[in-house]
Amino acid sequence: MIGRLNHVAIAVPDLEAAAAQYRDMLGANVGAPQEEPDHGVTVVFIELPNTKIELLYPLGEDSPINGFLEKNPSGGIHHVCYEVDDIHAASKQLIEKGARVLGGGAPKIGAHGKPVLFLHPKDFNGTLIELEQV
Amino acid sequence: MIGRLNHVAIAVPDLEAAAAQYRDMLGANVGAPQEEPDHGVTVVFIELPNTKIELLYPLGEDSPINGFLEKNPSGGIHHVCYEVDDIHAASKQLIEKGARVLGGGAPKIGAHGKPVLFLHPKDFNGTLIELEQV
Repeated sequence: MIGRLNHVAIAVPDLEAAAAQYRDMLGANVGAPQEEPDHGVTVVFIELPNTKIELLYPLGEDSPINGFLEKNPSGGIHHVCYEVDDIHAASKQLIEKGARVLGGGAPKIGAHGKPVLFLHPKDFNGTLIELEQV
Repeated sequence: MIGRLNHVAIAVPDLEAAAAQYRDMLGANVGAPQEEPDHGVTVVFIELPNTKIELLYPLGEDSPINGFLEKNPSGGIHHVCYEVDDIHAASKQLIEKGARVLGGGAPKIGAHGKPVLFLHPKDFNGTLIELEQV
């Protein structure tokens, strides 16, 4: 079912500093910050040759990243995102096999404008997994 | 400096169960467990079209994964590994720019038989970064 690793998302406490680190210390190709008010995050994309890293910073008081940064003040890897061909088929199949899809199982439109869902990290080795239909 | 994302490593509390999940629930291409006694881990590789996931399970009492699993009993994302062309040049450049290379800065031979180093997670948004020379 899963295909490419679409991205690894890293929550950071200082977006400008984190972007500068990846650009100046690690020599990566770092984009400009993009506000995603519908998702409560500001994102910086780091383009690697085979995938991308997304630096996530909270936008607004209801940001889904706030709780993570409270628990992990230095930041940390927030989730991995795997691509799927058909998000509805993936959701149905995963629920049938006993996985918990967050938010009731219905895919939503994610930060890239594509249908996504998230799987409960307790079902997957403490790892928050996003699936994105590409 | 950094190139491809070589792998994402996930520490897991039950290697067989985690491998079965990726194979049977997520439909991924999952390899057989490989013991790496020199590195204190048993590894299962999950081959994705553009990169790989490494499931890590402790091997032996001195495994570097033991402490992580004590703190994260459900498991969790342990590190990300970026490829570099020249590990010695990377180490020198990073130290000059103020990053802390774990173990004193000298690259070691990693689990893939290639020179690697690890960067201090406190310097990089709570993310343990491995660099591997390819």
